Amino acid sequence: MGQTLTEKILEDHLVDGEIATGEEVGIAVDQTIAHDLTGTMAWLQFEALGLDEVQVEVAGQHCDHQTYQPDFKVSDDHRFLRSAAGTYGAYFARPGTGILHQVHKENFTAPGKTLIGADSHTPTAGGLGCLGIGTGGLDVATAMGGAPYYLDVPEIVNVRLEGALPEWSTAKDVILELLRRFSVKEGVGKVFEYTGPGVETLSAHERTVITNMGTELGATTSIFPTDERTKEFFERLGRPEDFVELSPDPDAEYDDEIVVDLSDIEPLIACPSMPDNVVPVREVAGTETDQVLVGSCTNGAYEDILPVAKMLRDREVAKRTEMIVAPGSKQAAEMAARNGLTAELMAAGVNISEATCGACIGAGHVPASDSVSVRTFNRNFEGRSGMEDDAVYLCSPEVAAATALTGEITDPRDLADELDDLEAPGFEYPERYIGASESDIIMPDQAVDDGLVKGPNIDEVPLKDPLGSDLTGPALLKMPDNITTDHIIPATQEVSVYRSNVPKLSEFTLKRVDETFAGRAAEADGGFLVAGENYGQGSSREHAALCPMYLGIHGVLAQSFARIHKSNLINFGLLPLSIDAETYDRIEQGDDVELVDDAVEAVESGQETLTIRVNDDWEATAHLDANERERELLAAGGKLPHTRREFADGVDEEA
Amino acid sequence: MGQTLTEKILEDHLVDGEIATGEEVGIAVDQTIAHDLTGTMAWLQFEALGLDEVQVEVAGQHCDHQTYQPDFKVSDDHRFLRSAAGTYGAYFARPGTGILHQVHKENFTAPGKTLIGADSHTPTAGGLGCLGIGTGGLDVATAMGGAPYYLDVPEIVNVRLEGALPEWSTAKDVILELLRRFSVKEGVGKVFEYTGPGVETLSAHERTVITNMGTELGATTSIFPTDERTKEFFERLGRPEDFVELSPDPDAEYDDEIVVDLSDIEPLIACPSMPDNVVPVREVAGTETDQVLVGSCTNGAYEDILPVAKMLRDREVAKRTEMIVAPGSKQAAEMAARNGLTAELMAAGVNISEATCGACIGAGHVPASDSVSVRTFNRNFEGRSGMEDDAVYLCSPEVAAATALTGEITDPRDLADELDDLEAPGFEYPERYIGASESDIIMPDQAVDDGLVKGPNIDEVPLKDPLGSDLTGPALLKMPDNITTDHIIPATQEVSVYRSNVPKLSEFTLKRVDETFAGRAAEADGGFLVAGENYGQGSSREHAALCPMYLGIHGVLAQSFARIHKSNLINFGLLPLSIDAETYDRIEQGDDVELVDDAVEAVESGQETLTIRVNDDWEATAHLDANERERELLAAGGKLPHTRREFADGVDEEA
Repeated sequence: MGQTLTEKILEDHLVDGEIATGEEVGIAVDQTIAHDLTGTMAWLQFEALGLDEVQVEVAGQHCDHQTYQPDFKVSDDHRFLRSAAGTYGAYFARPGTGILHQVHKENFTAPGKTLIGADSHTPTAGGLGCLGIGTGGLDVATAMGGAPYYLDVPEIVNVRLEGALPEWSTAKDVILELLRRFSVKEGVGKVFEYTGPGVETLSAHERTVITNMGTELGATTSIFPTDERTKEFFERLGRPEDFVELSPDPDAEYDDEIVVDLSDIEPLIACPSMPDNVVPVREVAGTETDQVLVGSCTNGAYEDILPVAKMLRDREVAKRTEMIVAPGSKQAAEMAARNGLTAELMAAGVNISEATCGACIGAGHVPASDSVSVRTFNRNFEGRSGMEDDAVYLCSPEVAAATALTGEITDPRDLADELDDLEAPGFEYPERYIGASESDIIMPDQAVDDGLVKGPNIDEVPLKDPLGSDLTGPALLKMPDNITTDHIIPATQEVSVYRSNVPKLSEFTLKRVDETFAGRAAEADGGFLVAGENYGQGSSREHAALCPMYLGIHGVLAQSFARIHKSNLINFGLLPLSIDAETYDRIEQGDDVELVDDAVEAVESGQETLTIRVNDDWEATAHLDANERERELLAAGGKLPHTRREFADGVDEEA
Repeated sequence: MGQTLTEKILEDHLVDGEIATGEEVGIAVDQTIAHDLTGTMAWLQFEALGLDEVQVEVAGQHCDHQTYQPDFKVSDDHRFLRSAAGTYGAYFARPGTGILHQVHKENFTAPGKTLIGADSHTPTAGGLGCLGIGTGGLDVATAMGGAPYYLDVPEIVNVRLEGALPEWSTAKDVILELLRRFSVKEGVGKVFEYTGPGVETLSAHERTVITNMGTELGATTSIFPTDERTKEFFERLGRPEDFVELSPDPDAEYDDEIVVDLSDIEPLIACPSMPDNVVPVREVAGTETDQVLVGSCTNGAYEDILPVAKMLRDREVAKRTEMIVAPGSKQAAEMAARNGLTAELMAAGVNISEATCGACIGAGHVPASDSVSVRTFNRNFEGRSGMEDDAVYLCSPEVAAATALTGEITDPRDLADELDDLEAPGFEYPERYIGASESDIIMPDQAVDDGLVKGPNIDEVPLKDPLGSDLTGPALLKMPDNITTDHIIPATQEVSVYRSNVPKLSEFTLKRVDETFAGRAAEADGGFLVAGENYGQGSSREHAALCPMYLGIHGVLAQSFARIHKSNLINFGLLPLSIDAETYDRIEQGDDVELVDDAVEAVESGQETLTIRVNDDWEATAHLDANERERELLAAGGKLPHTRREFADGVDEEA
């Protein structure tokens, strides 16, 4: 039986287990990346593990989420990250170099490699045939130390592309089409592997747009085969030697198949406040728009800015609309400047930002009250823009540009009908990729700091005690379906400055759901969270598990869990317990919850069905879906105490 | 007797009083400007005055301090400002258009005009022969309504320039030389009028660098005559019709004279943490530098970016140093992009920001702990960068560029000795000024909002009751000399988002001096502040008077007051009472202070010498230096209640 591309890469990196759907395997990690919000904790953990040097081929540390440096704490974090990267042998991309996925793609991503990134959009690399998986920072820390990365072998879904995109439709519309058909939960436990004759109609860059936002389907990752178009891209990048041709076997068997005829795709837009709330642009055309933002790891490349510049050339952004272009990397920004796009965009009334994630995570250009923001980004979760009750739409650069010109949501095809001289910009590569990396990336042999440099806000890593036998406490908070990591720990500025200070950060835990939660949790002597389906969807931020841990939460009772977050809960020693809809309905906030089983015994023995007793009155079943390795972590109080102990045991044996 | 240029412009605009040093005059106002931190309150006050339309020739509203829009409150402020400008007939420069002084200079500043700006660097306009005076937003509000602006006729100091600047010395070094010779208090009550053969050696742009930072001498304003160089500048700006030739009479008499031989000036630098702490760069050369910032209203023009780009061309910023260039306007940014400077700077490792005041007021790019920041800005007051214990140096763009290249403070002459191919960039105009204004400035006839748009954080204007007869209360806080407006109400981000919400903003009052102050003041039923010399130096922000007013402060007992702040205190109904050194020494924080005189009677009768009784134990004299008009304001509880009442009386008379 032939192999899928995903299976080939997994097999090539297999160090533990067997490749069979749903079974856990450990794979060797070639590359890692982290950013400024996830990296501080990852490096503090790496330090706590007592290792001297990173063991992977390439480890990258970026500063992209907080480039505006609104606080000395952020600048201290950036300096700490530079010192950690230099001390332990990672490259460091200075603040302003750009968004990690874009910068890594330009400089280091390679086909056939495994890339573990402390950011949920790590699958961007899949557009170049690299198996990129987003995870928590702790997994990155241990991977940097040479440990395998563990995952359940996902279902592999064949996304068969046919036809070719019509004028004004883009790669962004391809992934929006999938989000229109399916939901943000569709991809949980799956890899979307793109095949079919449509693949070669898409440039390597366009493929990364699709794999990037595959994350919004909940997928483990997405991946494209590599071909002449990929080869051409690596040649343009100046890294032809990194190209490897990769494809699934002709007789590969997939767990499922989706067919997308590219020629049927029209300009689409995700409406507030979920990326799967997708409709054709024409359905919401005419919506007055206050802000248009172009950028992000999805659509911040030069190839995304170029069509916008073409459309805005010698035209003007509507006076009522503020338009900001934040390039995804300084390389993109430099090419835009060199090729005249920057000046043209400015003349049209665009405000050009430094290269940053910025507005995508609510760190800058927060929309005004009761306003509409149209973005080329990948997420529009409620509140993510930095304000409650936001109205954020997600679309292609072309739709964003048309909207900026008219001041209302506009299908560019309709605008082209109106304006005789507006032509579809189409896709175009820059003549040559230039700039930025040499001066802005500090390679390990160029390290500038003398050891780790920690500012006063950088606190030590909190450690949980080993699991106790008697778990009891109140249901401190009952939440609905689809609680995101933005609900648990927001990525906004006032919160993010405490990413390396867990005691302080924990005060913001689930504040968006219930302002009183953190206070109540800190006062209670342990307790549980209750949630509906898909708890913890969204980003990979481990702080969404770390902070509840710090607040003494024993575990989460949820109808289902998002993949990365479930793994983060286990990594931090919190029990992810599945309950059925009936139990969810019956349990109320404030109820006393008791785990009837001896927790240590149940976890260590592999027991999957546990019993909870509520208010000393009624009982229900809770499932613990965790393998042996995960159970070891849970018993130890999480991965960090577990790995530390393993290391200490090693030392003792030598003594 | 001949007239100085200052006297000529004052006379040309005189509507009240007589021009004699120290006497108060009222002058007609031609132009006004405000920014996003001062403008919201100014427009709320304008609204409270009940007027329909601005009465000045040009009123401008800019958004430059909070361009990163870190919070919906800021974006709401920006939208409110746009709606207010449109409603009342001012132009509105969109966020990202640039710093008000630079944008106004490019588009509206004209010789012989009076310009009142709610920002202390309004004297920038003086480089073009415009009498620009920084003031509180309330004065701008009433001026926009057509009221005269009142000031004491300043002493006019002749700053006679001789010779010409040597290579590597710049206009910035001229004003640093004055700050080296004198102190930040030297210019209080004075206008620095530049004359002499050195004037024509300086371009109009260079003159604005000098007048801009004349503010740091404490001057009311600074002004240059206009000549062929000014004419040339207006031609390049595309506004030749705005040029007027202006100069003092040959036999003008000045109150004082300072002679500066330009040929003696070498590269200078202001050391932490006061702009007058100036030494030759060579004295601090070798200081390791973590951050280099180029920009601000002093040195953010194209003419300032060009020498930096020339010096960095084909070179690289030191790896240990983060360099950010924030253009002063989008016009500057667009020209830099068009002429290739942007790409060159990026290639050298520079992070190019949007056009913003940003880092100058601590809103972004805050330095890391224990780090050194070298800036082309105008202020380095302690904490202004956004962190305590900062180490901020101020210098020319050339010194900043040399420092970025080496990673340590560097005299560019020494670097040129080292690098054979490093030539002094000299001064150069762009071939033609282009861009930005047309698309980014919304003129009154282009207004886009339907009336005022107020977000939920925009609170009403607080009003003080009329002055009471018995003023008594504790000395709530005793402060040393040179307390700045940054001490009273910081301009950092977390504070500035509340600029249009006085109750919330007041919680930050003097927090930098004493964390408990605001709470104690709010609890006390009235009280006094005690300060040394030069209380309230720094910016024009009226919130530094408004918040103490809101907290119930009756007045300030200080050895002396900074001009703008004293005027702001009176405008908000707080008594500025001068005390001598002995009284200052004797009075302690917590002492009970009682104004022995009937306050209303004393203020209204013109009484200058008042008596305070401390702890019911000893007495001292306090001076109230206020003219009749000011006393009317004080009695009424400030300018806003006073003007409102006048307006209401007018309505009554008509009824």
